[in-house]
Amino acid sequence: MKVITFGEIMLRLAPHGYYRFTQAQSFEATYGGGEANVAVSLANYGIDVAFVTKLPSHKIGECAIQDLRKYGVDTSLIIRGGERIGIYFLEKGASQRASQVIYDRAHSAIAEATTADFDWDHIFKDVDWFHFTGITPALGSNVADICLEACKKAKEKGITISCDLNFRKKLWTSKEAEHTMSQLMEYIDICIANEEDAEKVFGIVAQDTDITAGSLNHNGYIQVAKQIVERFGCKAVAITLRESISATQNDWSAMLYTDNQAYFSKKYAMHIVDRVGGGDSFGGGLIYAMLQKYSPQDSIEFAVAASCLKHSIEGDYNRVSVEEVETLAHGDGSGRVQR
Amino acid sequence: MKVITFGEIMLRLAPHGYYRFTQAQSFEATYGGGEANVAVSLANYGIDVAFVTKLPSHKIGECAIQDLRKYGVDTSLIIRGGERIGIYFLEKGASQRASQVIYDRAHSAIAEATTADFDWDHIFKDVDWFHFTGITPALGSNVADICLEACKKAKEKGITISCDLNFRKKLWTSKEAEHTMSQLMEYIDICIANEEDAEKVFGIVAQDTDITAGSLNHNGYIQVAKQIVERFGCKAVAITLRESISATQNDWSAMLYTDNQAYFSKKYAMHIVDRVGGGDSFGGGLIYAMLQKYSPQDSIEFAVAASCLKHSIEGDYNRVSVEEVETLAHGDGSGRVQR
Amino acid sequence: MKVITFGEIMLRLAPHGYYRFTQAQSFEATYGGGEANVAVSLANYGIDVAFVTKLPSHKIGECAIQDLRKYGVDTSLIIRGGERIGIYFLEKGASQRASQVIYDRAHSAIAEATTADFDWDHIFKDVDWFHFTGITPALGSNVADICLEACKKAKEKGITISCDLNFRKKLWTSKEAEHTMSQLMEYIDICIANEEDAEKVFGIVAQDTDITAGSLNHNGYIQVAKQIVERFGCKAVAITLRESISATQNDWSAMLYTDNQAYFSKKYAMHIVDRVGGGDSFGGGLIYAMLQKYSPQDSIEFAVAASCLKHSIEGDYNRVSVEEVETLAHGDGSGRVQR
Amino acid sequence: MKVITFGEIMLRLAPHGYYRFTQAQSFEATYGGGEANVAVSLANYGIDVAFVTKLPSHKIGECAIQDLRKYGVDTSLIIRGGERIGIYFLEKGASQRASQVIYDRAHSAIAEATTADFDWDHIFKDVDWFHFTGITPALGSNVADICLEACKKAKEKGITISCDLNFRKKLWTSKEAEHTMSQLMEYIDICIANEEDAEKVFGIVAQDTDITAGSLNHNGYIQVAKQIVERFGCKAVAITLRESISATQNDWSAMLYTDNQAYFSKKYAMHIVDRVGGGDSFGGGLIYAMLQKYSPQDSIEFAVAASCLKHSIEGDYNRVSVEEVETLAHGDGSGRVQR
Amino acid sequence: MKVITFGEIMLRLAPHGYYRFTQAQSFEATYGGGEANVAVSLANYGIDVAFVTKLPSHKIGECAIQDLRKYGVDTSLIIRGGERIGIYFLEKGASQRASQVIYDRAHSAIAEATTADFDWDHIFKDVDWFHFTGITPALGSNVADICLEACKKAKEKGITISCDLNFRKKLWTSKEAEHTMSQLMEYIDICIANEEDAEKVFGIVAQDTDITAGSLNHNGYIQVAKQIVERFGCKAVAITLRESISATQNDWSAMLYTDNQAYFSKKYAMHIVDRVGGGDSFGGGLIYAMLQKYSPQDSIEFAVAASCLKHSIEGDYNRVSVEEVETLAHGDGSGRVQR
Amino acid sequence: MKVITFGEIMLRLAPHGYYRFTQAQSFEATYGGGEANVAVSLANYGIDVAFVTKLPSHKIGECAIQDLRKYGVDTSLIIRGGERIGIYFLEKGASQRASQVIYDRAHSAIAEATTADFDWDHIFKDVDWFHFTGITPALGSNVADICLEACKKAKEKGITISCDLNFRKKLWTSKEAEHTMSQLMEYIDICIANEEDAEKVFGIVAQDTDITAGSLNHNGYIQVAKQIVERFGCKAVAITLRESISATQNDWSAMLYTDNQAYFSKKYAMHIVDRVGGGDSFGGGLIYAMLQKYSPQDSIEFAVAASCLKHSIEGDYNRVSVEEVETLAHGDGSGRVQR
Repeated sequence: MKVITFGEIMLRLAPHGYYRFTQAQSFEATYGGGEANVAVSLANYGIDVAFVTKLPSHKIGECAIQDLRKYGVDTSLIIRGGERIGIYFLEKGASQRASQVIYDRAHSAIAEATTADFDWDHIFKDVDWFHFTGITPALGSNVADICLEACKKAKEKGITISCDLNFRKKLWTSKEAEHTMSQLMEYIDICIANEEDAEKVFGIVAQDTDITAGSLNHNGYIQVAKQIVERFGCKAVAITLRESISATQNDWSAMLYTDNQAYFSKKYAMHIVDRVGGGDSFGGGLIYAMLQKYSPQDSIEFAVAASCLKHSIEGDYNRVSVEEVETLAHGDGSGRVQR
Repeated sequence: MKVITFGEIMLRLAPHGYYRFTQAQSFEATYGGGEANVAVSLANYGIDVAFVTKLPSHKIGECAIQDLRKYGVDTSLIIRGGERIGIYFLEKGASQRASQVIYDRAHSAIAEATTADFDWDHIFKDVDWFHFTGITPALGSNVADICLEACKKAKEKGITISCDLNFRKKLWTSKEAEHTMSQLMEYIDICIANEEDAEKVFGIVAQDTDITAGSLNHNGYIQVAKQIVERFGCKAVAITLRESISATQNDWSAMLYTDNQAYFSKKYAMHIVDRVGGGDSFGGGLIYAMLQKYSPQDSIEFAVAASCLKHSIEGDYNRVSVEEVETLAHGDGSGRVQR
Repeated sequence: MKVITFGEIMLRLAPHGYYRFTQAQSFEATYGGGEANVAVSLANYGIDVAFVTKLPSHKIGECAIQDLRKYGVDTSLIIRGGERIGIYFLEKGASQRASQVIYDRAHSAIAEATTADFDWDHIFKDVDWFHFTGITPALGSNVADICLEACKKAKEKGITISCDLNFRKKLWTSKEAEHTMSQLMEYIDICIANEEDAEKVFGIVAQDTDITAGSLNHNGYIQVAKQIVERFGCKAVAITLRESISATQNDWSAMLYTDNQAYFSKKYAMHIVDRVGGGDSFGGGLIYAMLQKYSPQDSIEFAVAASCLKHSIEGDYNRVSVEEVETLAHGDGSGRVQR
Repeated sequence: MKVITFGEIMLRLAPHGYYRFTQAQSFEATYGGGEANVAVSLANYGIDVAFVTKLPSHKIGECAIQDLRKYGVDTSLIIRGGERIGIYFLEKGASQRASQVIYDRAHSAIAEATTADFDWDHIFKDVDWFHFTGITPALGSNVADICLEACKKAKEKGITISCDLNFRKKLWTSKEAEHTMSQLMEYIDICIANEEDAEKVFGIVAQDTDITAGSLNHNGYIQVAKQIVERFGCKAVAITLRESISATQNDWSAMLYTDNQAYFSKKYAMHIVDRVGGGDSFGGGLIYAMLQKYSPQDSIEFAVAASCLKHSIEGDYNRVSVEEVETLAHGDGSGRVQR
Repeated sequence: MKVITFGEIMLRLAPHGYYRFTQAQSFEATYGGGEANVAVSLANYGIDVAFVTKLPSHKIGECAIQDLRKYGVDTSLIIRGGERIGIYFLEKGASQRASQVIYDRAHSAIAEATTADFDWDHIFKDVDWFHFTGITPALGSNVADICLEACKKAKEKGITISCDLNFRKKLWTSKEAEHTMSQLMEYIDICIANEEDAEKVFGIVAQDTDITAGSLNHNGYIQVAKQIVERFGCKAVAITLRESISATQNDWSAMLYTDNQAYFSKKYAMHIVDRVGGGDSFGGGLIYAMLQKYSPQDSIEFAVAASCLKHSIEGDYNRVSVEEVETLAHGDGSGRVQR
Repeated sequence: MKVITFGEIMLRLAPHGYYRFTQAQSFEATYGGGEANVAVSLANYGIDVAFVTKLPSHKIGECAIQDLRKYGVDTSLIIRGGERIGIYFLEKGASQRASQVIYDRAHSAIAEATTADFDWDHIFKDVDWFHFTGITPALGSNVADICLEACKKAKEKGITISCDLNFRKKLWTSKEAEHTMSQLMEYIDICIANEEDAEKVFGIVAQDTDITAGSLNHNGYIQVAKQIVERFGCKAVAITLRESISATQNDWSAMLYTDNQAYFSKKYAMHIVDRVGGGDSFGGGLIYAMLQKYSPQDSIEFAVAASCLKHSIEGDYNRVSVEEVETLAHGDGSGRVQR
């Protein structure tokens, strides 16, 4: 069983603890990005997974590769070249103060890559699953072209394709997103979204429901998933449901919609250590569960438990084992010391 | 529009994270003090503000100045001389364990300054607002004399004067405070206090109300403000209302009383990163709002939102922008990542 | 008044903050162990206390001694020799992610000590109280023999003996524990346990009660204590009651059973900084209160308040003063800054 | 007396201590660039100096400004706009291992600025000295155009112009450099160079001398300076002479050539803490000395002593006072503690 | 071309900077060991290399594996099991104060491994070179047996075998070493030693030469190498020559003896950052050079330049590229910044 | 054998590494002072030593005590009271940049102590040696009075008295020093000084010798010692000889003059880690050697080797063992790793 994820990996620079940018005398340097994060999740679960991207041939590019390799991700398909690695600055929020992200990712090697850089026939050799997110085509029409080429080739080879819509308003407009994503959705088997993506990308909203009402509207999410399935023919739609009480306290749950049936997970009240990569860790958990042929209910529970744990871990990557996820999914969230 | 704040800035030495003093192998070194904190708040909001004090001519004194200058505070009026900079040691509390403050501020340059050190005619040139707190006159009768001289000169020039009562039992007794503060109150237009100051300084308590009752007693606070206005003739009284559930969890709101009317803010449930300077950031927010001629309700909401954010920020200073305060004051406290 | 505690002190290696092991580029190095932790608690309360153990003669062994000495523990009775100091790796959990402990304590100097290493006649000179925990005999039958010898000698000298059952499933089985602890219980005056120990060690469970029910079952704990008293003849049994909501949030209270009467403490809702050593700090508080002849109710309140504070302190040791504990026990848990 | 420096300021990201990039879990974040470094030097000497550049309007851009402001540099002339701040990664070398610099400065706000961004009439109001380096025109022909415009305007206003050739082979070729710098040299009064720049930019080498011979060839450097003066009509040429024994040990001296006379400084044997910014601190010292009308010998001694001290200071900026430079220049390099 | 190295990898715990053990509040945690260090060197040079050992299945064992994998070492042949990972504590010396090493490696997984743990037929599939050091058989006779079995199998398959004598007096006596190593030497093609190993292990000393004389005795080292070749029939003997001026300053060179000819390298005057792993990096460089069929002189220059660079790098591993080594070997040790 | 040292212990606040004050976001917090440093040296050598001072009863005062206790110094004679603990800020120099010390020690508890605070009869019970330095009487005439009282009592009891002149120009003038020290010298058996103290305090200079000449003038130092002996009747005079090449490189040696004979030590070329406390560690070494009845030559070698090692250790205290000092004194300064 082999998985390919494709996208951008960035250098993440974050002040220590809860320092604001202006207080930072140093930045914690880690690496991450939607699809790289999914790759690390899967490698931690013991899946054979390769991350595909383009990175400059200098030492910082190499650091990103070494970090992926450390966690067991196959980096042998990464193309070296281009001018720079994308960077993002992250200031962690707390209580009523929101986290801030400053992107410095324009002109990165992958953002300036072309279809000529990637040989998908070679990349997809013996591959079962292909994953990318809406961030990747948003990097530029050249990268959207690469995604399209990859999707076509994957479909041709009978590879399952999953995509996390991951709308980023700093990268493109809803109109641009809809235009590009609609083309790609044709090829996508599993569509992942958060509570806002469907509206931001496809203008799909639940009818006759008030999404801002006190409690989450289960029926509304079902309708959204249904419309996605109907419009694009996906086999399954998974939607994460984040309720932000503050930057420190979030509730977290999700729904999996497949075969005309909706499966809702347990809801976790989380004290947040680092929420970046939370959605990606959900994707990683879901892909793992589906590769293992878990039931829909078990799949959504695994994915939500996995991503709940991510929120307690520093950095983009979800550094948890299958055993830890299962323990939580099966009910022990008490955080007792094991000794 | 120009603001002057006057008082002491200290070197603050705090163990990292939640270490107790006895565990500290190093101290985080920042700078702060009631009036310096207000100056930084205002500078961050784009106000032209100068901080007036006396600091020794050695390098640590210069560090304090550089730190203020970094945030855009005008430091050109600071007098250099004297023996030492005041120091305070701060041990951050958590959960049921309270924060500890050890003052080592006696004999500081400002505590030993005299009226001859400050030329208020020069300092108050083209100034609109003058702010100080009850800590400054508490440093010694010599410093109280300087305050009195400054107040007289400010009044003479038609400058608005605000004062935060800020009672410190480690600096003086209630009796001493009342004696000195009563003289100064004559000149003060805007009086700021926390839920205990009025009683500790002036013995003003709400009649027929039980302040220790479960919920905060709105009527009681109104009565306190009324009495202050009646006794000293202030134009407005602002009272912050802190409900300490633990060192980690506080509720935070405030009241502004002006023109015989009380305005209560929203209440925030805060997860605390650093609560020192919380009151000062309220003062900074209030002065800004008043300088901008906000309505009383908008003023108190701005001041409370500003100070709510401060509790999520390390160090005495409130490093937030007008935009961030407005976002919170207008309702988004969800702490969602912006990207 | 002099106290002896006897057991193992280990080097504790923990990643900074909430880092997982895999993210650690350095480990915070502290020292701790059930009985050493109790010794430090008592020294902080001003009690003359010596910790007895065996430590290798190399520099890391000396570091452990220096750390105890710093807090005022008498280390002059520690035997030097053997091959290594026990080590444990601690990864601090957060939210739904549990803390992880990896023991590397086999072959430590104390685990390979023999009865010939300790001269209890000398050690117990002018001693009033002897304390150890169930971890010590679990280190090996040789160490259980030392415990038995110590207990006999202590009893002979009329020294009060306390023992915290502290069952560790990574050190021995319930069967082994029961066999060894039953012999030792004969000598024990004060038995301390957490909500699971009595069952894990002696198979004592409350009859006709559902321990997993929503609220803690007071009656059940009384029955457990009663059975311990009946079976082993202890003078008092203290049971700590931890309710783990998550790794970040715990409720904490306890019961003291003595003279056929149960005394329940207040319950604290704790935001956890570091929960390792929480039980030991309870033991330290209880021994102090009993040495001071506090009433049973005051004793259990002191012990619970002491251990509640421990949860807000980094490291195994409870670095609090009698005054701080009393302040909390008598009601101020608001965490307000003192200044 | 007012000085303007113009160029790029970058975010500098450097692993702690002697870590290689691959070992860095965090980067020390400071700011620097040839002309910003000179500005900070001058501000530290009490000179009224403004740094002119273009920086993005985001928070990291603001951090660069705050850092300059902290040291007293006037930042009010900095234009905000553009996409990004230039970044450079620095890995500090030691012993036989050389320091590594990775530039990520393309597309920075200043590199994409145009002549329309800067109003030199306004900038040069009441200015006495204008300084830039060869790095600035190397950023692109658009920036070279800005330099040319600035030089013309400065000349017109009778402002002294200094330029440090600062050849950077990663930014342009010798041919490109010669083409552009030759135009600019017309306007330059004081030309600063290191031991290689003259050859790399203008192909000027000393005739009949072996530059690689054991000891530095004084005569050769005089010839080089002479040729520069003859070709471009500068009033003075200053050349720094670095002898790299290893990344840890350098010898450092310089020559000032003016009025047909060469003045050589003392030579310092330096143990290097951080050599980046060494040349800039020389420029800062030289400009200060010339503004103060020091004799040529005193000027070169001040500039070399200033830059010698820089090598003992972390970060690009030279954080030393006039007094410290004078003490060294006048002979005390013993490093004795002052107490 | 594939290389196998076999031995122990330990967790290395070192106080930061030049702190003594007693000052350490945290330990830098890295991983290293003679043969693991060689493996990382080779992986950095682009060689396909696997490290073989046994590590416990817990998380700290996994950290060691992840660290090797990060640098590109094949870890798929590592056996998981056993009780613990070996640990060593390192206190870095400076000036006249020597570095201290405290071993806590007894009972490690590899020290208690048996011949049944390793299937050398499988391990040596398509392998060209096998490397181990004298530390490995010193771990115990069981491990010496594994080494012997490996050597026999390697010889049988025509694999080149190299061994670094690496005498450790804390692991075994000279007598034990001679007994065991003599058996193994039969199989060894390339013997590496430092200036003391030959005497400590085999009692081989240069005749008629005074090794303690001021300058290193070239002839003496040639005689030692000759005797090793004559006694054991090795194809080549390499001897590193360290001259310790202080813990901060060492001179470093080496000799390669092969085909009756001695080749001496340049000598480097090193300012030491971290000297642990210096010898291993020499081994890694030598193996690389020999695999590349460098001439003997080029081989010894490459090996010495590689290990010279290691002394400037923190941690056991030599994190340098072939290009960096070649640059130094061919003469540039000036440590100039590349930009 | 019991030793008493008496003086001030201060909180030392130092930026990390080679940061200047202006770069410090945190300060390393350690404790030290001339006589406390000697006490720690002696405790490390196994001597029973108590440090006598007065410290405020707050937590920072307690930290100083805990730090001394950690190293085995008897702190039971320390008086608690007064307002503050003295502080000094230390900026470590490097290369040509000198270390800077800023004292903030006025008004400390010991500086304001009176003779009534110390009961020398009690303190000197069973004591053999009393040590203080010239810093202590320089704190104020009240403290000089305490010193005089202590000296008289010590003499009365036949206790050996040693004093390190330790002239501090920031504390008093040469004239004041001479006045006070001359009185105290009557009681002093062993006088310690550095190369400048004798002149600064007593105006004693070597006749007919040029102290600034290239090499140290042995004869000059002998004359100085002789004059001290003749004028005050000391039994021995020890003079340390520091040759400051730079803040990073010093040569270090010393002379002991006793019974009309001068003994010069070896000279060490030191690479400096931290030179503060260097003189005190010499005093500690000398007292130890004299207590052990070493020969004069062995005594001076021990004292110089001890203090040479101090220069490689962070913080004021000399954390070395007798064994380490002996190893160096007997010739091994090669800094080789022991393993």
